[in-house]
Amino acid sequence: MAATRQIKLGVFVRPSGNHIASWRHPDAHSDAGWNFQRIVQMAQTAERGLLDMLFSADTQSAWTAEGGGMERQHYVAWLEPFTLKAALTGFTKNIGLACTQTTTYNEPYSLARRFATLDHISGGRSAWNVITSGNPTEAQNFGQDVHLSKADRYKRATEFVKVVSGLWDSWDDDAFIRDRESGLFFDVNKMHVLNHQGAYFKVKGPLNVSRPPQGRPVIIQAGTSDAGREMAAETADVVFSAANDIEESRAYYSDLKSRMAKYGRAPDEIKVLPGVAFSVAPTAQEAIDKYEQLQDLVHPDIAIGLASRRIGFDLTPYPQDGPLPPPPEKVDGDRSSRSYMMYELARRENLTIAQMAKKFAAARGHFFVTGSTKQVADVLEEWFTTGACDGFNLIPPLYPNSLEDFVNLVVPELQRRGLFRTRYEGSTLRGHLGLERPESRYARPKSAAAE
Amino acid sequence: MAATRQIKLGVFVRPSGNHIASWRHPDAHSDAGWNFQRIVQMAQTAERGLLDMLFSADTQSAWTAEGGGMERQHYVAWLEPFTLKAALTGFTKNIGLACTQTTTYNEPYSLARRFATLDHISGGRSAWNVITSGNPTEAQNFGQDVHLSKADRYKRATEFVKVVSGLWDSWDDDAFIRDRESGLFFDVNKMHVLNHQGAYFKVKGPLNVSRPPQGRPVIIQAGTSDAGREMAAETADVVFSAANDIEESRAYYSDLKSRMAKYGRAPDEIKVLPGVAFSVAPTAQEAIDKYEQLQDLVHPDIAIGLASRRIGFDLTPYPQDGPLPPPPEKVDGDRSSRSYMMYELARRENLTIAQMAKKFAAARGHFFVTGSTKQVADVLEEWFTTGACDGFNLIPPLYPNSLEDFVNLVVPELQRRGLFRTRYEGSTLRGHLGLERPESRYARPKSAAAE
Repeated sequence: MAATRQIKLGVFVRPSGNHIASWRHPDAHSDAGWNFQRIVQMAQTAERGLLDMLFSADTQSAWTAEGGGMERQHYVAWLEPFTLKAALTGFTKNIGLACTQTTTYNEPYSLARRFATLDHISGGRSAWNVITSGNPTEAQNFGQDVHLSKADRYKRATEFVKVVSGLWDSWDDDAFIRDRESGLFFDVNKMHVLNHQGAYFKVKGPLNVSRPPQGRPVIIQAGTSDAGREMAAETADVVFSAANDIEESRAYYSDLKSRMAKYGRAPDEIKVLPGVAFSVAPTAQEAIDKYEQLQDLVHPDIAIGLASRRIGFDLTPYPQDGPLPPPPEKVDGDRSSRSYMMYELARRENLTIAQMAKKFAAARGHFFVTGSTKQVADVLEEWFTTGACDGFNLIPPLYPNSLEDFVNLVVPELQRRGLFRTRYEGSTLRGHLGLERPESRYARPKSAAAE
Repeated sequence: MAATRQIKLGVFVRPSGNHIASWRHPDAHSDAGWNFQRIVQMAQTAERGLLDMLFSADTQSAWTAEGGGMERQHYVAWLEPFTLKAALTGFTKNIGLACTQTTTYNEPYSLARRFATLDHISGGRSAWNVITSGNPTEAQNFGQDVHLSKADRYKRATEFVKVVSGLWDSWDDDAFIRDRESGLFFDVNKMHVLNHQGAYFKVKGPLNVSRPPQGRPVIIQAGTSDAGREMAAETADVVFSAANDIEESRAYYSDLKSRMAKYGRAPDEIKVLPGVAFSVAPTAQEAIDKYEQLQDLVHPDIAIGLASRRIGFDLTPYPQDGPLPPPPEKVDGDRSSRSYMMYELARRENLTIAQMAKKFAAARGHFFVTGSTKQVADVLEEWFTTGACDGFNLIPPLYPNSLEDFVNLVVPELQRRGLFRTRYEGSTLRGHLGLERPESRYARPKSAAAE
């Protein structure tokens, strides 16, 4: 492990890029929603850049809301991210494989199996981004007209993580003695039956997968709302946060870390990685030109459609050149943190609906930095060294170009400043992130074991 | 495609081998339950042998019944098979990747996504073995004390397959026009919203994955009971059957194929592959010795434990040297076809509980052939050419040895006889199996399209 604290970097995988109009760019791989080789190329570029992990978001539905420029967007069909991450194990050696899976429409036993298996197959590189599903179109694919309330989803998520973590401890690391002579395959005293009974789940166990190489795959959470922050403070290893600027990120960072002590955790047991979209080039003007080139490809319909989806109600009936209307009494689903962020953005910069929507479309509520290599590195360094984060979850607007820009330009600059690794130090994601391998809940206290 | 009909071959993946005591063999890879490289080696041997597909069974629980020699068996912790198959895409080029997933504890939307994605990533090599979960220990990992009745499980399974198949047709093959100029990513007229509402599922759709390369991943079923045979006749591409001998397999084969006409299907649209375990060597005596060596490693406790699990009630209270007791009024769960098979085996060969259990343990109710290369090839040829099957699902007792024996000895012999391919003819599993790529349910009739 490096002696000095260094920046941790995830990178956000999306077919043609994270920018909503990226697929229209002449260099875009517009078939990346189903052509796995495009994703392999992306993964290998990220690994060449020594990044900590590939990060996949997920939604259990196609974006098929009526209107809203549906047919203009490329987030409608893509490779299921967990399957994708499993397949990438054969094409990567070191980079972490982080995948979003919802707690709302999964079963803890199945999910625990899958991530434990990914951890084995990848040699300890798996991470689970824990989310709840608040999108009404997802509920309709799972037998429901409306989804669970936000409070219920969080309660279910908290119990879900507890069950999954318990199942991962089903077998002690040394349970499988495999004594050919006596014929005993395992030691029954090193098998642990969970027998969980809670409000949402009843799961007996044990898991039918041995303990993962990392002990526990890395747990990622967004930790945005108050309930989300508490859950993250208690159980997350990594927080993928969203902030519009450094002040907001600093406030978030100190708030989250201050909540950890009551769970017996030290502040550095969570790595806070705000999302950061970027346009970087050797000169600032080139970076601005690249940004504008992408923004010019955004059709107004799709920007308003995306904004409607994330703000929680339909914006299309309102004049696009007018201000944001106040939110309806009851928005579609629960009002999300992203919704508040959009109001704040419009207020601060005095934007019309169309302007807010287009600006929001560029990075969907994440910080966007545009500039020369030095300028971008300066910003990242400032965030990292002044208490705003432990690293970043990169949001390249356009694949393959934006990630290559980052790896070719920014990574060497950060390395020159001693802020980023020059080789992978370990072989597991926990190793990259500087996180301990957790002991099993059934491990004897070290003092007792020494007796 | 080959002009003459040839044998289709799947191979059953299990950590150290399909024999319950295989892990004790000196050559066994007893860590194959978590060491992915063992599975890679197995897959590459199978591909060297030009086999059609790797086949994985699955159970959503560890074998942790009280007693029954639990700690003596190796089917207690293994890599989750779907994740495994996804990871194998990077280590194989041609072989099909067939994976069991239950309809009892999954959601059709999620499952459809995963298999469609595996099909894309593997270039059209995915297959789904559709099962229902009748094992009480599984129910306890999914919030239930007892599982659904057998009749309900089949109804749910039938509806599940219907929903999944419908979701795979969500997008026409040419839906994604990706016109950078106009900014239209897809043609809304080529997107199909399923809007399924049935007794078990309500799923809106569309799927957020584009149409799989095979149109529809290959559907495998066991098709044992009467309800199972009907379901297979209507929807299966492959049937993985179980028969004690050639007569039983012939009767099954003609019965199943005769059920297909009423669903508008031709007999060769289903490939019937009975499981066949084997011990093969250059000479018959060596093959017998290998078989006996494995059987000698079976501890009586584990044989009785396995038999109890599959017969549906606990056999341990009965004298091991006595005959099988009649089944209790209501066996634990529903009585399975395997249970009847065990009674038939004991009756026909006049076996005690211990003898039946040990014999059953060798291949768990599948046909077991032991002999020289020529003898084994003769048996397979006879089954194939006299209406007992379209090929086999191989059940190698011991990894890596048994599969290597088959690939090195039997495959060349079958090739000499013109009964097996000498190279992969196509690149998809449907191609290997000689199955057509199904048209989308939304495809215009060819005559209409030609107008």
